Amino acid sequence: MHLFYTEGVDLFRSFNAGEIHLTLSETESAHVKVMRLKPGDQVLLTDGLGCFAQAVVDDVHHKKSVVRLTSVDLQPEKPYKIRLAVAPTKNISRYEWFVEKAVEIGVDEIIPLWCDHSERERLRVDRLEKVAVAAMKQSLKAKLPLISEPVSIDAELNDSSRNDARFIAWIDDTVNTHLKTVCPVNKDITVLIGPEGDFSPREVKAAVDRGYIPVSLGKSRLRTETAALAACMIINLINE
Amino acid sequence: MHLFYTEGVDLFRSFNAGEIHLTLSETESAHVKVMRLKPGDQVLLTDGLGCFAQAVVDDVHHKKSVVRLTSVDLQPEKPYKIRLAVAPTKNISRYEWFVEKAVEIGVDEIIPLWCDHSERERLRVDRLEKVAVAAMKQSLKAKLPLISEPVSIDAELNDSSRNDARFIAWIDDTVNTHLKTVCPVNKDITVLIGPEGDFSPREVKAAVDRGYIPVSLGKSRLRTETAALAACMIINLINE
Repeated sequence: MHLFYTEGVDLFRSFNAGEIHLTLSETESAHVKVMRLKPGDQVLLTDGLGCFAQAVVDDVHHKKSVVRLTSVDLQPEKPYKIRLAVAPTKNISRYEWFVEKAVEIGVDEIIPLWCDHSERERLRVDRLEKVAVAAMKQSLKAKLPLISEPVSIDAELNDSSRNDARFIAWIDDTVNTHLKTVCPVNKDITVLIGPEGDFSPREVKAAVDRGYIPVSLGKSRLRTETAALAACMIINLINE
Repeated sequence: MHLFYTEGVDLFRSFNAGEIHLTLSETESAHVKVMRLKPGDQVLLTDGLGCFAQAVVDDVHHKKSVVRLTSVDLQPEKPYKIRLAVAPTKNISRYEWFVEKAVEIGVDEIIPLWCDHSERERLRVDRLEKVAVAAMKQSLKAKLPLISEPVSIDAELNDSSRNDARFIAWIDDTVNTHLKTVCPVNKDITVLIGPEGDFSPREVKAAVDRGYIPVSLGKSRLRTETAALAACMIINLINE
């Protein structure tokens, strides 16, 4: 089953408002063409906001295909949110890979983090969003994780607006507390992961001063993107 | 600290046999050059067989640098081995990515598996070995996982020479037993993961008939390479 993304449309609301005809975006319309769908064919839609919908193809057009909603299925919210604040890697394909895999496995927000040792200076969030959309569709998820604009680690550390459990992981043989043993169930969680050169001592101290709990992700020495994915898997495993 | 690989040399044996001068391979000698090491510099070596060694650079040469062993450190064996029998993906970079990440996280053997629905017909094991060596060095491991020659799933299923716990994971909403709940501790484990088109019903039946336990890897629908890595992470987490 192929999943189509109705960007900018709240399927649940549209359906209940009686607006049952939807024009797909250019990208998705192109997909309809490529899949050789015909009027009358059934398709599955997601709005990336947590809702699936069944629909029937009304009109096939390479730029503006039209579908007609037949039913909607609002997915239940998970009782926890996973925020991963991860320094972009020098090689951007490693970061894109992380975004793809985290979306597949389950993440709610990815925050690119500028750190003292960051070697990269710019990041195209729109490219990461495309990766996230493709991974959402591929793994048949109803919710598109948020890829935030990059923030400095200090801005992230000073954000007191959230009520979540906060962890920081870096390469340090003296940290023996494994994330799996302290990760709470059914609670929002943020994990910070540093760049290739890791967090600076100043950053680690600032995080610990603000209550972030230092955690280990296992005995292996992991690259940035692998550590971030390991944290994502551990939190999902604990909650599943 | 940079780690050098002494392919084909058993460091523990060499050291104890008194043969303390070693000529590095061309690839590793090139690395010595690139790192601008000089005679007298300390380096860390691994034989990929479970032994680290400290050494001092004796001679820098772009093809045959010589080092002198000063101490060896045989790492303890883990009480479990992880075998992942995974169908190669259509896009080989996804499989190479899996090899890299599995080596980082910890795996003992990767067996490329030809299945009924495999879309790929050839595989260059030597390329995968290069990826594995790079990941071993990067993650400072003493042991190089074995990348086996590809085998048919039937050959794998009919191999009765091992005494391990055996699991098979595929996309099936009716399998509710999570690997994390049935994965034994301190025991050798094999997990089978199918290709993009997944295992055929015939293959699943054959595996179950031979005692493989069907397991789920979580609620998400994962790609081949992600499922294989998830299995690898779960087994390591259970054992750590």
